[in-house]
Amino acid sequence: MNPYQAPLKDMQFLLEDVFEATSTWQQLPELSEMVDIDTALAILDEASKISRDLIHPLNRTGDEQGVVHEGDNIITPDGFKEVYTQFSEGGWVGLCGDAEFGGMGMPKMLGILVDEMGYSACNSFVLYSSLTAGAALCINAHANEELKNTYLPNLYSGQWAGAMDMTEPHAGSDLRGIRTKAVPQDDGSYAITGNKIFITGGDQDLTENVIHLVLAKLPDSKGISLFLVPKIKVNKDGSLGESNGVTVGSIEHKMGLKASATCVMNYDSAIGYLVGEPERGLVCMFTMMNYERLAIGIQGLGNAQAAYQMASEYAKERLQGVAAGVKPTGVSDPIIVHGDVRRMLLTIRAMTEAGRALSVLTGKQLDLAKYAEGDVKAKAAQYVGLLTPVAKAFLTDRGLDATIMAQQVFGGHGYIRETGIEQFVRDTRIAQIYEGTNGIQAIDFLGRKVTGDNLETLTLFVNESIHTLNQLTHVKPEHVEVVTLRLNALLTTATYINDNKLSQPALINACAVDFLDAFGYTLYGYFWLIMADKSTDNVDTDFATQKRYLCDFYIDKLLVKADYHLAQVNNGDASIMQMPAEMF
Amino acid sequence: MNPYQAPLKDMQFLLEDVFEATSTWQQLPELSEMVDIDTALAILDEASKISRDLIHPLNRTGDEQGVVHEGDNIITPDGFKEVYTQFSEGGWVGLCGDAEFGGMGMPKMLGILVDEMGYSACNSFVLYSSLTAGAALCINAHANEELKNTYLPNLYSGQWAGAMDMTEPHAGSDLRGIRTKAVPQDDGSYAITGNKIFITGGDQDLTENVIHLVLAKLPDSKGISLFLVPKIKVNKDGSLGESNGVTVGSIEHKMGLKASATCVMNYDSAIGYLVGEPERGLVCMFTMMNYERLAIGIQGLGNAQAAYQMASEYAKERLQGVAAGVKPTGVSDPIIVHGDVRRMLLTIRAMTEAGRALSVLTGKQLDLAKYAEGDVKAKAAQYVGLLTPVAKAFLTDRGLDATIMAQQVFGGHGYIRETGIEQFVRDTRIAQIYEGTNGIQAIDFLGRKVTGDNLETLTLFVNESIHTLNQLTHVKPEHVEVVTLRLNALLTTATYINDNKLSQPALINACAVDFLDAFGYTLYGYFWLIMADKSTDNVDTDFATQKRYLCDFYIDKLLVKADYHLAQVNNGDASIMQMPAEMF
Repeated sequence: MNPYQAPLKDMQFLLEDVFEATSTWQQLPELSEMVDIDTALAILDEASKISRDLIHPLNRTGDEQGVVHEGDNIITPDGFKEVYTQFSEGGWVGLCGDAEFGGMGMPKMLGILVDEMGYSACNSFVLYSSLTAGAALCINAHANEELKNTYLPNLYSGQWAGAMDMTEPHAGSDLRGIRTKAVPQDDGSYAITGNKIFITGGDQDLTENVIHLVLAKLPDSKGISLFLVPKIKVNKDGSLGESNGVTVGSIEHKMGLKASATCVMNYDSAIGYLVGEPERGLVCMFTMMNYERLAIGIQGLGNAQAAYQMASEYAKERLQGVAAGVKPTGVSDPIIVHGDVRRMLLTIRAMTEAGRALSVLTGKQLDLAKYAEGDVKAKAAQYVGLLTPVAKAFLTDRGLDATIMAQQVFGGHGYIRETGIEQFVRDTRIAQIYEGTNGIQAIDFLGRKVTGDNLETLTLFVNESIHTLNQLTHVKPEHVEVVTLRLNALLTTATYINDNKLSQPALINACAVDFLDAFGYTLYGYFWLIMADKSTDNVDTDFATQKRYLCDFYIDKLLVKADYHLAQVNNGDASIMQMPAEMF
Repeated sequence: MNPYQAPLKDMQFLLEDVFEATSTWQQLPELSEMVDIDTALAILDEASKISRDLIHPLNRTGDEQGVVHEGDNIITPDGFKEVYTQFSEGGWVGLCGDAEFGGMGMPKMLGILVDEMGYSACNSFVLYSSLTAGAALCINAHANEELKNTYLPNLYSGQWAGAMDMTEPHAGSDLRGIRTKAVPQDDGSYAITGNKIFITGGDQDLTENVIHLVLAKLPDSKGISLFLVPKIKVNKDGSLGESNGVTVGSIEHKMGLKASATCVMNYDSAIGYLVGEPERGLVCMFTMMNYERLAIGIQGLGNAQAAYQMASEYAKERLQGVAAGVKPTGVSDPIIVHGDVRRMLLTIRAMTEAGRALSVLTGKQLDLAKYAEGDVKAKAAQYVGLLTPVAKAFLTDRGLDATIMAQQVFGGHGYIRETGIEQFVRDTRIAQIYEGTNGIQAIDFLGRKVTGDNLETLTLFVNESIHTLNQLTHVKPEHVEVVTLRLNALLTTATYINDNKLSQPALINACAVDFLDAFGYTLYGYFWLIMADKSTDNVDTDFATQKRYLCDFYIDKLLVKADYHLAQVNNGDASIMQMPAEMF
């Protein structure tokens, strides 16, 4: 099996041709100072080498060895520390970090492509740096200058890592019930006491310190506040001091992600510092959550891409049976001749390439929301809100689909650990659950983002999409028609939900997942038309042909899934809600 | 978490009310001698206790310990041997075996319900006995009297086990390429030499002997023949003799089924005995394959049932959030109040109960094909052919869906090994692959069973189903209408495939999976109407209410999936076949 190869050509195509990075960045002074397309492509090229040569080789051994909890230490598998050090020294942890504090200041629409490569190469490895970047983002947005100056440079440099401590045994999707306490101290700090579970990267042996962002309650307060709690105290001069009452109770034994330390964390009067305003912890945490939610979507995408590469390579080499309609000669054909194998591979590929478009578009809107001004900034913020839950849920659900289909291409060999594809199934499964289950994402999408503003954002997005489709000159008019039909159907169905949400309070919860899926399948149709159109003039005519074939396949075979999901939504919640709980 | 409980009430309902076991058995003298409904229910009751109290406790420890290959020995996890001995002594291995040779002669429509309980309790355990029963079936159908007398009683008693040796490294789905050789010996036996892979239960420490059914080629023959090859030679008097050149090369490390020994088998001039005619080995093996295919379908079903029990119990206990439209009181509700959780649980349950109907119907047709006479027998044989690939593929695909949805209900806890649900995901995944991948099943279904007789069997089945639906008096007429619509749509689409199969040779392969899924979703609609109808007069009015609610849910939410899959088929194979292999 060949090593992982980043799809650089597809990435460049999306950046340059589909989402017009050059003109976008030129309009954003802060970004245009830092990056142009040549720099961006050079970064992608370097990231592809690191993913292939350094990170990917850790993947299988990491799964076999797993993380070990020995005494007070969490020991990562062989090679993790060395590669993490190299990765950090290359500046990759701080790639999109604030340049004022030592980050590289790169745009998100570039950063997510680097993230994708990492997840394709080794999920467990990339989680450590991804959570660090997320923690830094949250600190940069909400903490005071002293905390920023003390913590950000060491987070961006990868010397310290970050973690996000939300969940407690009785408070997962519903954080109201958290019991961790924060008691104010005379010096303005807080003493944090409590237990957290499912803390990814809660501790490890990769970095000198771990900076926890911990949700806790102030005395006599129902509201939730956010605290920065270092594993090891930091002295005034920035050097490391004593340990801080932050210990690992145990690590979880999981279905996958075995090289990622998922910790039970105990806080015993640990010193913490308030981040943001008291009782506004969830708002602050959401800065990090939104970032992580997109990153976790990218996990699904990266896994799908890796699965495609493995399965398509196998399908071109494995000889079994002969092509239909061909007289057997005694020689077998590669299984890529079989329609059912092609169907699976085309499905993975068409979904993954459109998924990458979703991730770059979401990244671009994050950049606009951060660096643009006025109306452009405001609209981008709306689109970030709309697209983030979709990117998280749809990319990870399709990531699981992709790894399972790829495993099927391998037949019996796909079930054997040595082949490696089953690890991707196990590793990617968690992405549908953590950082808010995909059900929670869908409820956020339909309840807050779609109907929360009485369809204003959705209407804007749909109309803009239809307008864009009508400008395309190199695609089949009947393809534009069928996608436009679904875009309008989304609005019609959303109107039905919005009109009935008060009289039928269970409607949104019961229909949310299907509405999100309908949106996703429709959106991917939109992306395929744009990609087919924009590739027409590509100097590589094979590249253009592939995009046209994939667009045909998508419109022919996959777009219609949107109808199924919309039909579900339009049938409402009656048959879901009528059975009493005790009959389950 | 409560231990597994067999759904006895649902099983009795299917046997007695839906598929009318009593009147069916009364018409079959050989069966009515052996069994009546009271005996059948007593057997189910006893099987439920064994599944719960003996087999289920092996499941988690079996996964943690796994099978070990030590020297020449395969060592199963703690408790497997003791329970297997008890299970065998209870007569469960020979439950449906031929009474002439020591089997219990029970009908298949009863046996598959016992199988389901076993798979719900512990997949790895039940595979050992299931393959033994399959091997016995094949020997009984094709071997000579001497072989039958020597081997069947010990297989039915569970003293010896059976295995099916087909796959070689370069011959999986396509068996033409097998290289194992069988050289005739002077005494009428054959010397078998070659290597087989992926041999479930190829060896173990549960039984005294393992009887392999091995596909091999005679000298200068392209055809494939079938041989019975014991691990340990059997003397004329039936006692065990010397070992027979049958050794385990290694065992596979797999995604799941860790307590089931998947062996690489080496044959070095091992003595074997021809089963059936020379060069007719595949035909003989298909007797076993068809039996195993149904059994593997039941694996998917049993896993879905176990997953439902775990997830519904969790959903009724886990407190998170409050019901939509209710003012928060500070007290959380169990998550069963949330529409999205109910949607997942209802989907698993509606699919699983209809899946059980499919399994009992297929079992009933197997019984009729075996024990009935004349036209009834002939038609049943047609239906067995039609339904077996559907039962294998559709039940196992939905089995994976069910375990994944159940895992999602558990949130983060579902990813932790201790919770147990992730094991079902890993264990059930193989069922979509082995005994012929689900793609192969679909091609068999559409290519041989549906279009192979120019739609004769399908037409008969569809018309009979529509006729049955029109007799129902306790269901909503609009429900009958929508299912009838899909049944007719199946015929229309099948006609399109049949009319074009010669001019478009890739059509069947490319569209087979979607056609099978469309058939499955339609068939389940048919089952739900029958179940809703037949339950109306049940003395347990709650039982009837549940069936009505589930029928509503199925028709409202799931039946429409058939349309999506039919649309795929009707769009043909052009977009699947147009991309050249090198572009993948």
